[in-house]
Amino acid sequence: MSNPIQPVILCGGAGTRLWPQSRGLRAKQFLPLAGANSLFAQTLARVDDDSRFDQPVILCGAQHLAMVREQMGDRQCRLLVEPMPRNTAAAIALAVAGADPDRLLLVMPSDHVIADVAAFHAAVDKAAELARADWLVTFGIAADRPDTGFGYIESGDALGTQGFAVERFIEKPPLAEAERMLAAGGYSWNAGIFLFRAGRMREAMLAHCRQIYLAAERALAAGREEGEALVADARDFEAAPSISIDYAVMEKDERVAVVPVAMGWSDLGSWHAVHSLAETDDGAGNVVDGDAFLHDSRGNLVRADGKRVALIGMENVAVIVDGDDILVMPLERSQDVRLAAQAREQPAN
Amino acid sequence: MSNPIQPVILCGGAGTRLWPQSRGLRAKQFLPLAGANSLFAQTLARVDDDSRFDQPVILCGAQHLAMVREQMGDRQCRLLVEPMPRNTAAAIALAVAGADPDRLLLVMPSDHVIADVAAFHAAVDKAAELARADWLVTFGIAADRPDTGFGYIESGDALGTQGFAVERFIEKPPLAEAERMLAAGGYSWNAGIFLFRAGRMREAMLAHCRQIYLAAERALAAGREEGEALVADARDFEAAPSISIDYAVMEKDERVAVVPVAMGWSDLGSWHAVHSLAETDDGAGNVVDGDAFLHDSRGNLVRADGKRVALIGMENVAVIVDGDDILVMPLERSQDVRLAAQAREQPAN
Repeated sequence: MSNPIQPVILCGGAGTRLWPQSRGLRAKQFLPLAGANSLFAQTLARVDDDSRFDQPVILCGAQHLAMVREQMGDRQCRLLVEPMPRNTAAAIALAVAGADPDRLLLVMPSDHVIADVAAFHAAVDKAAELARADWLVTFGIAADRPDTGFGYIESGDALGTQGFAVERFIEKPPLAEAERMLAAGGYSWNAGIFLFRAGRMREAMLAHCRQIYLAAERALAAGREEGEALVADARDFEAAPSISIDYAVMEKDERVAVVPVAMGWSDLGSWHAVHSLAETDDGAGNVVDGDAFLHDSRGNLVRADGKRVALIGMENVAVIVDGDDILVMPLERSQDVRLAAQAREQPAN
Repeated sequence: MSNPIQPVILCGGAGTRLWPQSRGLRAKQFLPLAGANSLFAQTLARVDDDSRFDQPVILCGAQHLAMVREQMGDRQCRLLVEPMPRNTAAAIALAVAGADPDRLLLVMPSDHVIADVAAFHAAVDKAAELARADWLVTFGIAADRPDTGFGYIESGDALGTQGFAVERFIEKPPLAEAERMLAAGGYSWNAGIFLFRAGRMREAMLAHCRQIYLAAERALAAGREEGEALVADARDFEAAPSISIDYAVMEKDERVAVVPVAMGWSDLGSWHAVHSLAETDDGAGNVVDGDAFLHDSRGNLVRADGKRVALIGMENVAVIVDGDDILVMPLERSQDVRLAAQAREQPAN
């Protein structure tokens, strides 16, 4: 390919839904939640293909810089440091402001799982063709259940064999609406993966969220180099409103495309999702990481973090240990983890 | 009283049903499971009454000697060390062999709770009168539920106002039988508390379990003093069959009495019992020792041991932390704790 794609990896998330293991310096993306390597390391490996991808740009907070460097190993990357979290629009604006206008940028979260990398690469190739024709492209995950935890994308007119014009974005729906969309077809999940020409996104941002883009551009210009990292200027960056790229640009622009793809994607958005995605070891649906003794127990998730966990007669619960913290809950209550995280982490924030 | 009673406190238990907090050097009797002081310390305090009781004799294993000394504080006690566990008949035989024949001995486990000490003392006074008339006296706990975890004692003929001749001992019964006894009245629980004249028990042992008594007598005579402790001779003591005093003597003797008593007794025989006995702090039936965050959780027992436990949406479970061990189970499965204890402690034994 004449113009390799520039991966932009977003590492700014806190991952509080996977408390207590995900917190502070060891946020979700830096944990080995599916397989031996961290989600961030898997994300990097996914774009380790010189024929398709250029050296990645990594966007992260200052507190995560050491972890990013450690997990990068000897991979060459460009590091952009956000002085404070300002959501995805401002983060992406930093990458756009620093890129050649003709460069294609592939923006990806660093805390998701993609099992079928070949399918991902094929979708990237399709998206690149659309991006060269000045579409802002989003990737639509083939929905296999009426999940109410994701936003949905409705496909409109076909754009050759590459994808579809986006008809509309749909906020996290109620169950009945999710079931209707699943049955109707032509809807996919919004996974927060985007591909576009940098100059095209710059124009879109100047049209739809000018304040964010200009703040990011100033923050980049006034930034300081630290080793191979560039730290954006805090006062300039702080002026950027904290809005997602979906709200700021994608839902407003007229020329947005979706490339549907089935690639074994999961956002591992809860301990329940971590349990669901893992292979069970014991024929009883238990997923164990570390030293656990299980008696008459089924469907549990145990992450022992060097401690020794014993379960007797337990079903479908999570027991998550991290240092001195121990979380116990039914897996189906996973969405309430933030309550414990807030109560426990408050003094430190 | 002309002849104060000699307390004999049995500290040889391992308390594996309260694993992981009860194990090894910190066996159940040395833990603060009900109130601020350990069960052993509470047992000592219960006989801290010069008008009624002489200096206690404490029987324990060598591994627990340091803990016994620490928890005795400045209390003067006579320490008898069992070189290996040989059950209650042999332990009591050691105390009997070392006592003046006319001395009344009050034998007590060290790992039970007695809330109403005045009622206990009143029962001791009654039992002492019967013991002076050469009855082997056992204390019968007034049953308030058809518990299948205890042996039962059937009362026979009244012995004045002091108690009753024992009609028979009943092994741990099935539920229907326990319910029948509770409804019929005249039955009580066998709590393993005994009062007798030393010389009378010596004769009973020589008649019913001669081998045990003679082994203990030899082990005592060949014992060595270590500080204020006397360590029974291991080779002699090992020859004693390992049988409970109930099997070895009480069920065989013809002159056994029972003094029924209601004194807020519990053997804290499981985490379920520890939960039941404790006062709950929060109006939701949760019993917490240590640092716990509870959300939408009811009826749980949490013992955090310096760690930080978070429960979300849990009901009626025990979460017991001890060092690097974490036990999670429904409280109603408390009888299965030994399975985990065996699996976890095996390498160390």
